[in-house]
Amino acid sequence: MSTPDRDRATELDAADPLAPFLERFAPPPAGVIYFDGNSLGQLPYAAREALHRAVDTEWAQRLIRSWSEGWMELPFAIGDTLATHLLDSAPGQVVLADSTTVNFFKLASAALLARPGRSRILTDHANFPTDRYVVESLALNHHMQIDWLTTDPAGGPEPDAVEPMISEETALVTFSHVAYRSAHIADMKRITELAHSCGALVLWDLSHSAGAVPLSLDDDGVDLAVGCTYKYLNGGPGAPAFLYVNQRLHQELAQPIWGWIGRRDPFAMAPGYLAADGIAQMLSGTPQVLGLTAAREGIALSAEATIAAIRDKSIQLTEFAIELADELLAPRGVGVGSPRDAARRGGHVSLTHQDAKQLSERLIEVGVIPDFREPDVIRIGLSPLTTRFADVHEGLLRLASLLG
Amino acid sequence: MSTPDRDRATELDAADPLAPFLERFAPPPAGVIYFDGNSLGQLPYAAREALHRAVDTEWAQRLIRSWSEGWMELPFAIGDTLATHLLDSAPGQVVLADSTTVNFFKLASAALLARPGRSRILTDHANFPTDRYVVESLALNHHMQIDWLTTDPAGGPEPDAVEPMISEETALVTFSHVAYRSAHIADMKRITELAHSCGALVLWDLSHSAGAVPLSLDDDGVDLAVGCTYKYLNGGPGAPAFLYVNQRLHQELAQPIWGWIGRRDPFAMAPGYLAADGIAQMLSGTPQVLGLTAAREGIALSAEATIAAIRDKSIQLTEFAIELADELLAPRGVGVGSPRDAARRGGHVSLTHQDAKQLSERLIEVGVIPDFREPDVIRIGLSPLTTRFADVHEGLLRLASLLG
Repeated sequence: MSTPDRDRATELDAADPLAPFLERFAPPPAGVIYFDGNSLGQLPYAAREALHRAVDTEWAQRLIRSWSEGWMELPFAIGDTLATHLLDSAPGQVVLADSTTVNFFKLASAALLARPGRSRILTDHANFPTDRYVVESLALNHHMQIDWLTTDPAGGPEPDAVEPMISEETALVTFSHVAYRSAHIADMKRITELAHSCGALVLWDLSHSAGAVPLSLDDDGVDLAVGCTYKYLNGGPGAPAFLYVNQRLHQELAQPIWGWIGRRDPFAMAPGYLAADGIAQMLSGTPQVLGLTAAREGIALSAEATIAAIRDKSIQLTEFAIELADELLAPRGVGVGSPRDAARRGGHVSLTHQDAKQLSERLIEVGVIPDFREPDVIRIGLSPLTTRFADVHEGLLRLASLLG
Repeated sequence: MSTPDRDRATELDAADPLAPFLERFAPPPAGVIYFDGNSLGQLPYAAREALHRAVDTEWAQRLIRSWSEGWMELPFAIGDTLATHLLDSAPGQVVLADSTTVNFFKLASAALLARPGRSRILTDHANFPTDRYVVESLALNHHMQIDWLTTDPAGGPEPDAVEPMISEETALVTFSHVAYRSAHIADMKRITELAHSCGALVLWDLSHSAGAVPLSLDDDGVDLAVGCTYKYLNGGPGAPAFLYVNQRLHQELAQPIWGWIGRRDPFAMAPGYLAADGIAQMLSGTPQVLGLTAAREGIALSAEATIAAIRDKSIQLTEFAIELADELLAPRGVGVGSPRDAARRGGHVSLTHQDAKQLSERLIEVGVIPDFREPDVIRIGLSPLTTRFADVHEGLLRLASLLG
């Protein structure tokens, strides 16, 4: 079966302008098809080299002097690469620090503090858990109400559904730009406009967007954003997350975790907190040098590839996967739980099946690594810099075989 | 001059039971005397090897599977090593995560939320800046007052001075156990008792204590503690920090940064935050695997050396440094800004001089790396696992030479 599909995969790989990037990552073990680059991206060889240098030279030899020889600048330098190449934003608005959860907490808190007297936060039931949980905590501690948008399981927040849920009582609107389960892409510009028309601030979670789909944070009028760097950005396990604050808000907002690294002139160790100028005020504790070092290299690879080329290949990969799913898997009871319109779909494809959990486990046994997501989703992550069309074909063939 | 001192140093090194540990760290470059292991500890060779394994095998080969093959357990496993070997505490009360600043914010917030109706926080002017700044932020956002204890520059918070400043209005008392400038050791047990007698909670910053001086958190009745792992614990630049919550408080306290890793059964990704049992509830975002991997090895070395042996050598090192300072530096206008009673002094010695800043810069030029601390302190960090008595002698000789 499907020899034409295999030929097709071979042709697509041969024509792939990003194919040279495959050689710049450690491949998965022989025989393994890795469909989870959207959960933990593969190791860039450059990250391995940079870590050796950071350990053997910067830490072991230069010791404490390395702080003034580059380490203190890492959050800003990497943030600027991310901002200018992958978020289509001016420099000076992004830093890498902490985890997505902590960054989300900081920026959501800052938004609520900047909108006193407003009592409501809008998010959706299908948002990534950590975002929902932080919103719950903030609502409790700030005595606010949460408005929960219900979305289509294969979709995400749509402007028409969002609009009636925003009012002059809304302090903060927060959604994931690409839904972690369905891969639905929200209309960032339109939803941001809707929030602004009522005076609310908007915080976008870009964890499944950054490095997979083009973003235009400045042009779309975005206020605040956070995201993780260990998925499509290949930054390494538990890599530092990023946060974006539009520069028009740098004077107005204050995040609540006042640490020495966010203070003006931190090494003066002076009395009284004075927020640093610009995006530096969003930092708190000492930068995580090892994690930042690896993340820098992963992000640099995506910047070098260009987000336009990444997106082109990403669409081809997910279109091919859906085509194969329709042909090979639909007859075996598997549905597509992602938007069929490529323009509204991020970098992964969700396949639905009532036995998704067991199927995911059996896939791992036959060397195909997907993600299972409750209750019925096998998530096929197709990270463009590290996935061949032949991998898509082989992986889905193995799934079809499991289904008999 | 000082040939007897050099002989003395040689004898002390020859008799040092911890001398074999020197070989387990990358040495500073030839000719460099490193007096800053209390700011950034040296590289343990085991950390380098563990990082290679984490990168080349766990990340590159096992990929996402590593999360269930050990990565998720890192915060707890390392926390238990730290608790049982270095904090004299029962397991299940310490995790490694985030930065000291973020952990301080979480635990101080939890304390304030657990003492509603109380309006005051007690700390001291000489506390480490990040702690002071977080306290200021919390006071602002919780509408509370800060009581600022003023301490002797060469000392720290003393029970007699603390006692009249605690009342039934006090929600939280927070100090550094070892003062970052003077190295003064606070009376943890007595100050904790004073706070408890008024119903307040106590949060100790152990950044300059952990791995340098013995601690008995459980026996001293400590409620909460945080600390950093990149100083005496040799955990690496920007390594994840630790936090301790006494188990008697696990039911009562709730920290405010509700993230998926602190939720019961996080991968269910279910609606509604339910705090995990025990210390896990204090986690928020995804663990920093690379930073944790290095920190694990640094902490394991201190555990292996035993805190009793570390403390014995630490006292000998600081006694020797003070002896040399009195002999060689006092005649040249240098004072000792640390307690002279070894029992009340941590692992570093502060030398005071009106030109401390310029002297620190000139010391670096002649290959001696100390820390300068405003306004007049040259801080000589003598990390027991990586410092020879001969280093103390040679470094202070070079300082004496600079002074003519």
